[in-house]
Amino acid sequence: MKPLKVNKRIILGPGPSSANPDVLNSMSNPILGYLDPDFFKILDDVRTGLKDLYRTKDHAFALSGSGSSGMEAGLTCLAERGDKVIICAYGYFCERQILMAERLGLEIIPIRTEWGKQMDPSLLEDTLKENPDTKLVVATHAETSTGVLQNIEELGNIVSKTNALFMIDCVTSIAGTEILFDDWNIDFSYAGSQKCLASPPGLSPCAMSEKAYQYIKNRKTKPSSWYLDLSLVNDYWDKDHIPQYTVAVSSIYALYESLRLLEEEGLENRWNRHKVNAEKLRKGLTAIELNLPISPNDRLDQLTVVTKPDHIDDVEFRNKLIYDYNIEIGRGLGDFAGKVFRIGLMGESCKSEYVDQILEVFQKEI
Amino acid sequence: MKPLKVNKRIILGPGPSSANPDVLNSMSNPILGYLDPDFFKILDDVRTGLKDLYRTKDHAFALSGSGSSGMEAGLTCLAERGDKVIICAYGYFCERQILMAERLGLEIIPIRTEWGKQMDPSLLEDTLKENPDTKLVVATHAETSTGVLQNIEELGNIVSKTNALFMIDCVTSIAGTEILFDDWNIDFSYAGSQKCLASPPGLSPCAMSEKAYQYIKNRKTKPSSWYLDLSLVNDYWDKDHIPQYTVAVSSIYALYESLRLLEEEGLENRWNRHKVNAEKLRKGLTAIELNLPISPNDRLDQLTVVTKPDHIDDVEFRNKLIYDYNIEIGRGLGDFAGKVFRIGLMGESCKSEYVDQILEVFQKEI
Repeated sequence: MKPLKVNKRIILGPGPSSANPDVLNSMSNPILGYLDPDFFKILDDVRTGLKDLYRTKDHAFALSGSGSSGMEAGLTCLAERGDKVIICAYGYFCERQILMAERLGLEIIPIRTEWGKQMDPSLLEDTLKENPDTKLVVATHAETSTGVLQNIEELGNIVSKTNALFMIDCVTSIAGTEILFDDWNIDFSYAGSQKCLASPPGLSPCAMSEKAYQYIKNRKTKPSSWYLDLSLVNDYWDKDHIPQYTVAVSSIYALYESLRLLEEEGLENRWNRHKVNAEKLRKGLTAIELNLPISPNDRLDQLTVVTKPDHIDDVEFRNKLIYDYNIEIGRGLGDFAGKVFRIGLMGESCKSEYVDQILEVFQKEI
Repeated sequence: MKPLKVNKRIILGPGPSSANPDVLNSMSNPILGYLDPDFFKILDDVRTGLKDLYRTKDHAFALSGSGSSGMEAGLTCLAERGDKVIICAYGYFCERQILMAERLGLEIIPIRTEWGKQMDPSLLEDTLKENPDTKLVVATHAETSTGVLQNIEELGNIVSKTNALFMIDCVTSIAGTEILFDDWNIDFSYAGSQKCLASPPGLSPCAMSEKAYQYIKNRKTKPSSWYLDLSLVNDYWDKDHIPQYTVAVSSIYALYESLRLLEEEGLENRWNRHKVNAEKLRKGLTAIELNLPISPNDRLDQLTVVTKPDHIDDVEFRNKLIYDYNIEIGRGLGDFAGKVFRIGLMGESCKSEYVDQILEVFQKEI
């Protein structure tokens, strides 16, 4: 084997995004044991940083796994086999939630609405009225497959009038869009380290309400997964630091550094950076007469979906970008497969100069 | 938050161990997408390296999770709810397998034998005869709680005469002790990146037989976990690279570099390094009249268990080592709690100078 040499790619896809060089370099720090008192100090700071980021007074931690591990952890822990779970489904990752829930033996009530549009919250209200024994409601904040932002505040308000728990996917929204965990009545949310947080992939930063924690501790059967048991993960991250498994120490260094850089930039400034660069990208794409199928009221700043012109070959075009221009963009998924490109401007990849580059390439090649 | 600063600790515990500086620095490389053609080249090399390491012609990959995620993945995928599973239980991590199997609704037949001793293989032979419908046999190669190595070859030979699958825990053995996956009739084994491989924690390097892969693809019900579905993980790592989740890209860079350094040192030389340093440690501990409770025939080189003298306070002593000498050693677990210390010499922590240091401290403080 030859020594590893990785050429930098300009990553403008749906994730992972590029990571900040200081974040990457932080992983050169020596390993500490996962029960080392020095490591607990780092862990405590990360926990506090995540609580601030999610705006919660309750619990926060990061799973040693991808964002999908956070998704599965929530579905595994917040409902028991046979329980009724409403899943708001308007994209590829919502469908993944349904696949996971099926495997877990949950009774799924999907609310499937048109991809690329915000869901009408009254649908959730009606479905909850028809199913008063619902145990869990699942929604996705920013769907990475469609580039649509949902009104989680309104959905949370509806769920809060019932006994159900409320879980949301924040994989693409975290650090790029406002999340008010406590105010929006969320009980569990999971995210990814590799997008607007500008960290490498490998951790799923989560927040959990005390209500959800108590639910897990007191449910009739233990969650089928020990590794993804959110109460055990929380007991390790919380002040008593009860050992569970050996966490991904270096990745937690990286997350520390990501949160520090976020504090330095300011959370609202970071949202604004995503907004400004997305606006510039959308303007540029429109100027070269490309179609943006998502309505201005619904769309995300982190991820822009653009309709693929008919004369362009999907795979060939994306390969050309990789090999001739060193730029990665995303393909369409599910209902959008072969129909759109997805351009992500997230975290370290959210830079004005990258917008210029991708616009130049699109202008030339389309 | 202040910029991260981590002081190097001499880690001589049960794991994680220190990671090689070149391995840590490899994580400073820029992120690549998990579907990037350049990343697939790295992934392919890691897969080949792991196949060579495990000595298998079938499948190898690394889960984005700790060693315990590998444990849970095997139990989740290689048996269905209600299936009979024999678990050879002679330590703390064997008991963790039982905890996980209970949550998964498996019918567990434990073979519990004395901690700190090799299990008599005829016990497995008898239990399999009494339970011809057993679907899976689970054993632990090197128990990190007791420092005992088991005769996996003999156990595998017994299992191969039945229809059961055979799964082993290689968390502490990998790269420190011989493993012959194919020759020993193993169907699935999981490990940790953070011990004799000298990588940071966060990945679970696994090997899987084609028989196990086919079993998972054709079982009656899908595994309850999507994240830990070994057939999906394998489909991503195998030549078609079918997307599952965003893997821990930087950790895979680190594993690449670990495997490269292992190739450079030579696998047998690495085993020998562990043997030579362990021998020196054992000799030194015996010279200062400390008791090594594990018989020379059964013991591991990676991890030495030493009886705690009665006049020494367990917690106080280990804290003294951390705060006064900057050295971490391990406590006893389960049946051994409060009775022993565990000294690990694994991977980057397996150095002659560290043996000198720990012996000097023991001589002075005991």
